[in-house]
Amino acid sequence: MLSALAPLLDAKAIVTDPADIDPWLHDWRGRFHGAAPAMLAPSSTAEVALIVKAAAAHRVPLVAQGGNTSMVGGATAPADGHALILSLRRMNRIRRLDADAGLAIAEAGVILADLDGAAQAQGWRFPLTLGARGTATIGGLVSTNAGGTQVLKFGTMRGLVAGVEAVLADGSIHDGLSALKKDNRGYDLDQLFIGAEGTLAIVTAATLRLAPAIAARGTAWVGIDSPQAALRLLRRMQARTDAIESFEILPAESLDAAIAHLPDARAPLSGRHPWHLLIEATSPTTAGESPSALLERLLGDALADGALADATIAASEAQSAAFWLLRDSLSAAERALGPATQHDISIPVETMPDFMIEAAAACDARFPGTHASGFGHLGDGNVHFHVRAAPGTDPARWYAEDAPVVTRFVGDLVTEAGGSISAEHGIGQMKRDELERLSSPARMTALRAIKAALDPLGILNPGKLVTLARPPGAP
Amino acid sequence: MLSALAPLLDAKAIVTDPADIDPWLHDWRGRFHGAAPAMLAPSSTAEVALIVKAAAAHRVPLVAQGGNTSMVGGATAPADGHALILSLRRMNRIRRLDADAGLAIAEAGVILADLDGAAQAQGWRFPLTLGARGTATIGGLVSTNAGGTQVLKFGTMRGLVAGVEAVLADGSIHDGLSALKKDNRGYDLDQLFIGAEGTLAIVTAATLRLAPAIAARGTAWVGIDSPQAALRLLRRMQARTDAIESFEILPAESLDAAIAHLPDARAPLSGRHPWHLLIEATSPTTAGESPSALLERLLGDALADGALADATIAASEAQSAAFWLLRDSLSAAERALGPATQHDISIPVETMPDFMIEAAAACDARFPGTHASGFGHLGDGNVHFHVRAAPGTDPARWYAEDAPVVTRFVGDLVTEAGGSISAEHGIGQMKRDELERLSSPARMTALRAIKAALDPLGILNPGKLVTLARPPGAP
Repeated sequence: MLSALAPLLDAKAIVTDPADIDPWLHDWRGRFHGAAPAMLAPSSTAEVALIVKAAAAHRVPLVAQGGNTSMVGGATAPADGHALILSLRRMNRIRRLDADAGLAIAEAGVILADLDGAAQAQGWRFPLTLGARGTATIGGLVSTNAGGTQVLKFGTMRGLVAGVEAVLADGSIHDGLSALKKDNRGYDLDQLFIGAEGTLAIVTAATLRLAPAIAARGTAWVGIDSPQAALRLLRRMQARTDAIESFEILPAESLDAAIAHLPDARAPLSGRHPWHLLIEATSPTTAGESPSALLERLLGDALADGALADATIAASEAQSAAFWLLRDSLSAAERALGPATQHDISIPVETMPDFMIEAAAACDARFPGTHASGFGHLGDGNVHFHVRAAPGTDPARWYAEDAPVVTRFVGDLVTEAGGSISAEHGIGQMKRDELERLSSPARMTALRAIKAALDPLGILNPGKLVTLARPPGAP
Repeated sequence: MLSALAPLLDAKAIVTDPADIDPWLHDWRGRFHGAAPAMLAPSSTAEVALIVKAAAAHRVPLVAQGGNTSMVGGATAPADGHALILSLRRMNRIRRLDADAGLAIAEAGVILADLDGAAQAQGWRFPLTLGARGTATIGGLVSTNAGGTQVLKFGTMRGLVAGVEAVLADGSIHDGLSALKKDNRGYDLDQLFIGAEGTLAIVTAATLRLAPAIAARGTAWVGIDSPQAALRLLRRMQARTDAIESFEILPAESLDAAIAHLPDARAPLSGRHPWHLLIEATSPTTAGESPSALLERLLGDALADGALADATIAASEAQSAAFWLLRDSLSAAERALGPATQHDISIPVETMPDFMIEAAAACDARFPGTHASGFGHLGDGNVHFHVRAAPGTDPARWYAEDAPVVTRFVGDLVTEAGGSISAEHGIGQMKRDELERLSSPARMTALRAIKAALDPLGILNPGKLVTLARPPGAP
């Protein structure tokens, strides 16, 4: 296959030096390890099409890879070395940035931060952000329907994609880049390829919706009695403004952990409160009421009505940054407390407050000595639900024996609550068996039928998301 | 099949009297005519599942039907009588209306106006409206990804559906009604069934997003020099507010036709302008600047800058209604001028102004004596593009011979411009051959593969959208 491709591709498109390939064989957290005799790195959609055609002809599977920041082993090649890595990183052009329409056409290898930077230079922004923004690529973000901290207002990647260009499993090119607001020409292929984790087609470019750049920002820290009160506050504020972009919740114990973890950090409020909120509002203009004044007015009214316990508005960018540092340190602070399982779950927004309380109690009761808690994006119904091992637990034993049992228990709770065991990370190889265990027969039948229909040879990201038939002992 | 089903279904679920069936065998415009020995009218999802299982066992195709308001023959049974009608109209319960979350779960047979009425009673509304709102059902609206006049702000049905319940071709039930804002458990089946025209699954219910009810409304009529200037005005206004819900464009000749067609109608502006806009802004509260004041301020600024020629704000609900009556009469007014072809097309918003001018000129040149023009939803890139026959043309000849040629010519222009030959009506049987002619091989291969995968027996709405293999002369 490589010798057939060599004369057709540019010189940098075929990488066979093991030292150059090795960094891309392991996921960034070091949990999944693959093997591949070569990495293909095309620089154009036409080259991707040639590669997929050759892969189909030679029955060689391809593992599409962008920034390699998957949380579920979604971009790690199989360990038996029968697949090749298809790196999209060289396809890193922003083909067009239309400042009138607020649209950008970005190739799969464009890094999220670079797209946002190009948009900012034109008075726009790309309103999706996450920790890996300096590494994650557009192709990966589309293929995993990425979320992040601005979903409350702008939705996930699915809501920001106006069209997709992709190479199908037979090497033909689907051009859906034309940004049509209304288009009813049959099944929506663009939507199908969003979140398909490279198992149905190779996404090579996307047309993306931009949002006006932020001209003013307001940040508030709120003390409140319960998640239920927090949701009521969110609904109350949303009925009065659509300027709210972030609405993050954390329990007192998480704030304590963050303060203990960070040097020089202190609590934003003087009193002690069982739950805390970090709320951010923005405006695309400096005219009219500022987001800080808006927050002060809305939270002041709510305080007067007893809808919250206390609140403070960041008086400066530095204070706003200090609030966010507390929030962004939660994962690291909790990790410092000992081994834990971390669950990327979502359930309907309206029932999330009750779930946070009841699921934590159920976990604590089922696994004595452990401690469960949640923090995160309340307005998205998406909390990071952590179960910490009992003090003194051997980490190796926890991760090998206890953690899988805990994960299945949490998966059952989430499923009973009508939720999802993958809010934003996808399925990859890590959650594939749990997806199968917890899904209805109707869903699994449909997923398998679609996979078999669009990738009949099974050459696109094998072993991820859904398998057609799994030989005993297969990875 | 019917005798097997009879003991399993309630008494009203099997209709065999030809007089009761006949009204549902013809589309509402009288262009498509089908035949069916029976109509099945289940009252629950479980009954739909039983019916689909029986249909699969007996290889009897089912044509799902809601309000029977398709514009493309999408709900008309095949003429050879080998299929049964599956009416969802008896499934007309609003299962839940969550006034805290702004969500409704409506069964497939709920009529659009009834859903909106139920929402209005709770301080919400369902922000999608179209001419057939008193007849069209939720199942049909989901299955055709319906649009209408509020897409500018709220998007099409696709953007308003939070989840779908559907019966798959094997009779299994997909329950996607849980309203998860983040959910990455593999291919998005809900999105796939939206706009699938009942060819992949039978949509039985949907979870729908509501919007706050309108507390105040402002309506403006604007005279402007060109579609290009109109788009610049839209962008300018959108940069300053997100209150704009409608932005409709029409040429002077369309306004003239409407005024001639309507008794007592008069032009909203005293001067003569080549193009006109109908702009509507709304607010969910009566607090702050009113939508009328907002329009007056924004249009006043634009007038001062020379961005438009003239404008007037409706001073009363009656005047607003008079503006809308002009807009809503355009189709009827144009029909009164003689035979014409009407095209439901979309192209990217940014290029729509040029397209309106250039495509009309190209049609006029290609078909001497005819006259082409467009009006409609400029902000959605969706105009109703009409080509009127030369004066004196025999209508029968026009529709039989000329219209198909004109339609293909317009389809070519639209496709060259990166647009869609079906902005909101879908494909049905009317546009099936044009879809095939104008689509890339990649798209058609994928559509066929998905159809074959999810409906391997071909029992769901046969002959619509895409066919797997068409015997010569087949309908």
